Amino acid sequence: MKTIIIINGPNLNLLGKREPGIYGNESFECFLEKLKQEFASTVSIEYFQSNSEGDIINKLHEAGFSADGIVLNAGAYTHTSVAIADAIGAITTPVVEVHISNVFAREQFRHHSFLSPVCAGVIAGFGLYSYRLAIQSFLY
Amino acid sequence: MKTIIIINGPNLNLLGKREPGIYGNESFECFLEKLKQEFASTVSIEYFQSNSEGDIINKLHEAGFSADGIVLNAGAYTHTSVAIADAIGAITTPVVEVHISNVFAREQFRHHSFLSPVCAGVIAGFGLYSYRLAIQSFLY
Amino acid sequence: MKTIIIINGPNLNLLGKREPGIYGNESFECFLEKLKQEFASTVSIEYFQSNSEGDIINKLHEAGFSADGIVLNAGAYTHTSVAIADAIGAITTPVVEVHISNVFAREQFRHHSFLSPVCAGVIAGFGLYSYRLAIQSFLY
Amino acid sequence: MKTIIIINGPNLNLLGKREPGIYGNESFECFLEKLKQEFASTVSIEYFQSNSEGDIINKLHEAGFSADGIVLNAGAYTHTSVAIADAIGAITTPVVEVHISNVFAREQFRHHSFLSPVCAGVIAGFGLYSYRLAIQSFLY
Amino acid sequence: MKTIIIINGPNLNLLGKREPGIYGNESFECFLEKLKQEFASTVSIEYFQSNSEGDIINKLHEAGFSADGIVLNAGAYTHTSVAIADAIGAITTPVVEVHISNVFAREQFRHHSFLSPVCAGVIAGFGLYSYRLAIQSFLY
Amino acid sequence: MKTIIIINGPNLNLLGKREPGIYGNESFECFLEKLKQEFASTVSIEYFQSNSEGDIINKLHEAGFSADGIVLNAGAYTHTSVAIADAIGAITTPVVEVHISNVFAREQFRHHSFLSPVCAGVIAGFGLYSYRLAIQSFLY
Amino acid sequence: MKTIIIINGPNLNLLGKREPGIYGNESFECFLEKLKQEFASTVSIEYFQSNSEGDIINKLHEAGFSADGIVLNAGAYTHTSVAIADAIGAITTPVVEVHISNVFAREQFRHHSFLSPVCAGVIAGFGLYSYRLAIQSFLY
Amino acid sequence: MKTIIIINGPNLNLLGKREPGIYGNESFECFLEKLKQEFASTVSIEYFQSNSEGDIINKLHEAGFSADGIVLNAGAYTHTSVAIADAIGAITTPVVEVHISNVFAREQFRHHSFLSPVCAGVIAGFGLYSYRLAIQSFLY
Amino acid sequence: MKTIIIINGPNLNLLGKREPGIYGNESFECFLEKLKQEFASTVSIEYFQSNSEGDIINKLHEAGFSADGIVLNAGAYTHTSVAIADAIGAITTPVVEVHISNVFAREQFRHHSFLSPVCAGVIAGFGLYSYRLAIQSFLY
Amino acid sequence: MKTIIIINGPNLNLLGKREPGIYGNESFECFLEKLKQEFASTVSIEYFQSNSEGDIINKLHEAGFSADGIVLNAGAYTHTSVAIADAIGAITTPVVEVHISNVFAREQFRHHSFLSPVCAGVIAGFGLYSYRLAIQSFLY
Amino acid sequence: MKTIIIINGPNLNLLGKREPGIYGNESFECFLEKLKQEFASTVSIEYFQSNSEGDIINKLHEAGFSADGIVLNAGAYTHTSVAIADAIGAITTPVVEVHISNVFAREQFRHHSFLSPVCAGVIAGFGLYSYRLAIQSFLY
Amino acid sequence: MKTIIIINGPNLNLLGKREPGIYGNESFECFLEKLKQEFASTVSIEYFQSNSEGDIINKLHEAGFSADGIVLNAGAYTHTSVAIADAIGAITTPVVEVHISNVFAREQFRHHSFLSPVCAGVIAGFGLYSYRLAIQSFLY
Repeated sequence: MKTIIIINGPNLNLLGKREPGIYGNESFECFLEKLKQEFASTVSIEYFQSNSEGDIINKLHEAGFSADGIVLNAGAYTHTSVAIADAIGAITTPVVEVHISNVFAREQFRHHSFLSPVCAGVIAGFGLYSYRLAIQSFLY
Repeated sequence: MKTIIIINGPNLNLLGKREPGIYGNESFECFLEKLKQEFASTVSIEYFQSNSEGDIINKLHEAGFSADGIVLNAGAYTHTSVAIADAIGAITTPVVEVHISNVFAREQFRHHSFLSPVCAGVIAGFGLYSYRLAIQSFLY
Repeated sequence: MKTIIIINGPNLNLLGKREPGIYGNESFECFLEKLKQEFASTVSIEYFQSNSEGDIINKLHEAGFSADGIVLNAGAYTHTSVAIADAIGAITTPVVEVHISNVFAREQFRHHSFLSPVCAGVIAGFGLYSYRLAIQSFLY
Repeated sequence: MKTIIIINGPNLNLLGKREPGIYGNESFECFLEKLKQEFASTVSIEYFQSNSEGDIINKLHEAGFSADGIVLNAGAYTHTSVAIADAIGAITTPVVEVHISNVFAREQFRHHSFLSPVCAGVIAGFGLYSYRLAIQSFLY
Repeated sequence: MKTIIIINGPNLNLLGKREPGIYGNESFECFLEKLKQEFASTVSIEYFQSNSEGDIINKLHEAGFSADGIVLNAGAYTHTSVAIADAIGAITTPVVEVHISNVFAREQFRHHSFLSPVCAGVIAGFGLYSYRLAIQSFLY
Repeated sequence: MKTIIIINGPNLNLLGKREPGIYGNESFECFLEKLKQEFASTVSIEYFQSNSEGDIINKLHEAGFSADGIVLNAGAYTHTSVAIADAIGAITTPVVEVHISNVFAREQFRHHSFLSPVCAGVIAGFGLYSYRLAIQSFLY
Repeated sequence: MKTIIIINGPNLNLLGKREPGIYGNESFECFLEKLKQEFASTVSIEYFQSNSEGDIINKLHEAGFSADGIVLNAGAYTHTSVAIADAIGAITTPVVEVHISNVFAREQFRHHSFLSPVCAGVIAGFGLYSYRLAIQSFLY
Repeated sequence: MKTIIIINGPNLNLLGKREPGIYGNESFECFLEKLKQEFASTVSIEYFQSNSEGDIINKLHEAGFSADGIVLNAGAYTHTSVAIADAIGAITTPVVEVHISNVFAREQFRHHSFLSPVCAGVIAGFGLYSYRLAIQSFLY
Repeated sequence: MKTIIIINGPNLNLLGKREPGIYGNESFECFLEKLKQEFASTVSIEYFQSNSEGDIINKLHEAGFSADGIVLNAGAYTHTSVAIADAIGAITTPVVEVHISNVFAREQFRHHSFLSPVCAGVIAGFGLYSYRLAIQSFLY
Repeated sequence: MKTIIIINGPNLNLLGKREPGIYGNESFECFLEKLKQEFASTVSIEYFQSNSEGDIINKLHEAGFSADGIVLNAGAYTHTSVAIADAIGAITTPVVEVHISNVFAREQFRHHSFLSPVCAGVIAGFGLYSYRLAIQSFLY
Repeated sequence: MKTIIIINGPNLNLLGKREPGIYGNESFECFLEKLKQEFASTVSIEYFQSNSEGDIINKLHEAGFSADGIVLNAGAYTHTSVAIADAIGAITTPVVEVHISNVFAREQFRHHSFLSPVCAGVIAGFGLYSYRLAIQSFLY
Repeated sequence: MKTIIIINGPNLNLLGKREPGIYGNESFECFLEKLKQEFASTVSIEYFQSNSEGDIINKLHEAGFSADGIVLNAGAYTHTSVAIADAIGAITTPVVEVHISNVFAREQFRHHSFLSPVCAGVIAGFGLYSYRLAIQSFLY
């Protein structure tokens, strides 16, 4: 039984409500229930969301020396936060970066991620299924 | 009667105290009282200030589906926060970006705003009167 | 009674006719009449439009040592004219830069203004009401 | 019978006289006569030249809602004039951008055209025959 | 039963032989057999490798109107080929971009992909398991 | 009787099938027949298409010392191939660069052509008629 | 007796635990004790650490009008925070910027500091002794 | 007896009135009289000023095939006008570029001149004496 | 007896025919014969030329694990091919990059080589003797 | 007893005489005496100044294999000299880079140091006390 | 009687010998004699040439607090030497920057001068007469 | 019998002592002896080393009108010295640029050489054998 933490960054609490054309209209909580059930036999999934850069760093520190894996969608902080990148580099748990949308098909400033170089891998563009693939990646 | 929220970002709590050559020496609270009186018959003005990017996002989420307008001076976050821009894009209340000083006459890095493209409009350089014009803009 | 000059730059003579999706379909003359009436008791509004950079500079020189305020929408010259910027810097009447559309939400080359650093303030994105706010700004 | 306006920008009045190595030594008026004869049965060709950006915009406005086509060689304004580009975008007559020389084989600053994105098509490098091909393009 | 084509680009024929520190030392053929077995009940996997940009485009054209999915590791062409990007945009089968290594943790020129904006999604950094996750992504 | 070779680059074999909003829905072969008939009395038109950069270079070498003209639409290689540019510079037959769409109105990376500086001229944006104008250019 | 505040930014709470090759393996608390003893007769040292940009700004505001000196290691915020720079500019206590590692010998994005221009001085690369030198600098 | 034309560009009609800290407070007309007297025995000086780019080009064309020398202070057009540069390149009279202030000690955008590469020489920073030196340069 | 493979890239088959001012007018085959004779006692020279990036990669793979040295003039692919660079990095035979002309004295885009960082050494500017020096370099 | 060499670069011989607003008005020799006295019991301080890049390199070579520490203020060469950086990298004595002024608060070109990446540490902005702190750094 | 020092930088000792197409074929010594005679009654001209950056700085220091003017042609150091610029800024004698050729019509890297912003004025492009004009400038 | 001068720039006097991982541990003098013997029958080799840019220029001037060839390893000045490049351009003896290491595989700032465009050829990456190949190049 593995422990995996999903960390969602800013504005992802509005999922289902915010720009459904890009992000779909299912809330994350709803999706999370289905995800937990799907992986019930092999993974214990914990969930954390915050709009604050500092809180995300705190959570990474807290989970990052004991969990088996972290699935991180840092939202807009992906493109601006050296501090979160440093936190990922400082912990020992591997982190997989996920994005719901294909960030590379959007505005120029969303093409660069400070986090990717210190993450184990990157998954983007599969809608909420990006999270599923990320969890899958920890099971091989 | 319209509800308009004024959100002030980092360091604006020091107004009147900080670099009076640029920002004047009236405190924002003092000015706010006068503003409330001036628009007393048509607008209910609510005020929020925080130095934390996450708190500003939280406030935008909280007010952004019910208020009639948001007047946002995000201070330095104007130039660095994709996350606040995403919050503005995710809510339904229109946001007017204001600046006390003429940011375009200052350092190069203050010329670019991540927020402007998702705001309804931009008003800069009129001292504290920038807020007054912003409120005015919601009354037409 | 204050004297305020509105100066419109290239292609603004086509207002109401040109790209109504961006600029609306009211002609400027029509709007100007309403504006004059609204401020009839406090402001004498004069209007000038030209597609020529040189004529705009001439007008700034002519009005710029006697008028109480200039409201300038330099259109495309905003992004290319150092000469108009120098004219603004050379005169003594304060100039407010206005834009009908939110220029920051359009093409990259419209994000930079040579004029902003020498203007008193900037107002953009409020449709024709941008002019109204600009005149208002001279009345405080 | 179609009406096509040829608009020539700055320094093209010196054709035949200016840098014959690049532009040839036939004057434009001379060439124009031959062009008119060649297309006499199908096209009425009108000609306008000015060294002033404003005058070119005025002419575009004047012709741009009635002519069948405009052939525009904006000369150096090609590379610097957002205002002419806006004029092309504001009118309804299609505009074909032409250049006598192959601008892409010359100085770096001649490789970028503000006009191309709003023109119907671009023809460059065929000497004075560039105009002939442009007129041809309106006849298909 | 879905048909999925795996297309590998330049130098991937050397897998197991080339820079094992980055790419591991299992040959792709070896891995492919295991992959086929794992998905035997749901997916028919076809494999194509070429060091030639033109051949990859030809294969995309050939498979791109009938297969259910394409898993593409274009290797170095990822960073230089507008032509492959155009091929992906021209076909109707969705393409998932995969990379064995975390390209974002390597040289600067490997951070940009011409292909990502026209792909359905991107998966990078999971070693050969990147392919497995890509196939998985077509099964939801 | 002149001999002119039309060379089409990558993805142009999908014409009529690929992104009809940009490229129209007539196949090139179909159009070619009409073109041959139109110029039957004066030009012998030969056609070559390949998705491979090397093949296009080979064809340029083969035709480039005997044909009277080459009409080249190098597709995406326009923007990336120094090798094709060198081939054009190395042969003696003049080459006219054509584009179906107005490449200058599309993505930034399509605005630069490695080929233009070594071509005789450039024609872009006239749909399939761009080819017709290019052939015309060899007849003056 | 002078009062000096040491403010540590994101991830510095992991000191001794995080990347010991770069940051050494002594915890900051441990080092702080020795520092307090060394300067016991002349300086009262106060310590604050936070992973939150907003909290660091709050602390700067709180201490910045009464303390004799601030020693600030803003960690990753050094490279991204205009808001902290504005806070430093807004207070009256002089701030010395310190870094444990030689940031100029690391990744490109660590070479630029938004804080340096508004700090009194910069000390980098001396391990934890950077803090000692910073305190020393307030004693001359 | 040589004929030399002095051409002054935009805003130079305000000399003596505009930013005296940079440009001094003598009007150009006043200075011109003294200049004419000083060179009365050897040079016939003609003067032209315009705020319009087109008019300056017209004047260059008019004088540029007969005068012995042109002294050009194109003001702000120095930094933006390819059209004036083309006019200088098209005429046969040599042109000396002058600036009253040391443009290289001012804003970044004043450091680049489109005109310098096609002028015979450049003289900047000597106040109104820059014109005197320029005339001198034609007398050797 | 060492085995050295000379690989020539695009357009080098035209040597002697193409731009003799830059490349001389001796054909490569002619030169090759003399080279083989000169080194007959110590080196077995094999020759390969292709205009196709893929074929060059194939040849590098084929020779790159057994030959003693590879002399590579990748022509224009030098400046654009990450794929050939990756091939060089993937093989074990050392590769020396040669250029006939002094590429650094030509167009800006010829100054950067994707291949140099993974080659053993670089020799440029000695005409066909560059190949001779490259072979010499394998004999020390 | 440690031996520390202070090396001062170009224009620092003018200290006390040059721009006292930035550098103070004490001569370096004067300050040096006080410094020697302060550290008399622990450090033997040697001093060298030159305006020549080559002499500074010579001095680094001479002292760089025997002294215990070098305090280097390379003045303007800090920003332009790869050769001094190479000298620092080539010697075995650790070098501390110092600046009297806060170089990061001055012109853009003073923000980059070629020397910092190869120095042990950097101290800037403390006036002449920067040297004192640098010597201190060698005593821990 | 004024004292003016002419300082010539690297390679100017080869004047008359070096690239006569650009620099003419008169030696500087020869020209200097004529210059001294021309200004014999008003100016005492001293001459210094060195190929060493350090020597030029030494000379500026030596002359820069007593001479009435310095005419400086720093040759290639113009474009690379912050140290010479600092020397000019540190002395009190005004310095006029001269160039024999029109540097703005040559390679891109010769368009930028580190010296211009700290010089009194700039004169370029008049051949050896540039020096004459520079001396003249000190006589007004 | 040809005369060839080897000129070594800054820090190359430390060869054998400095960073042996990059430059090997043979001193240059030692290598020079072997080189002289190898070419004893055909070349007279002279050697010069200096850490001073000015001295290298002086040597180039001295040797550059009589020697048959110059082999120049300008070390770090390669990347910063326009003055040495100008010296090479001013003399008549051909210069071959050599580097011991493969500069293109090192830091970004070592990839650009101001000298290459004016040298006859470039040889880099062959250790001390780079010099041998350079001498060889003068013997064909």
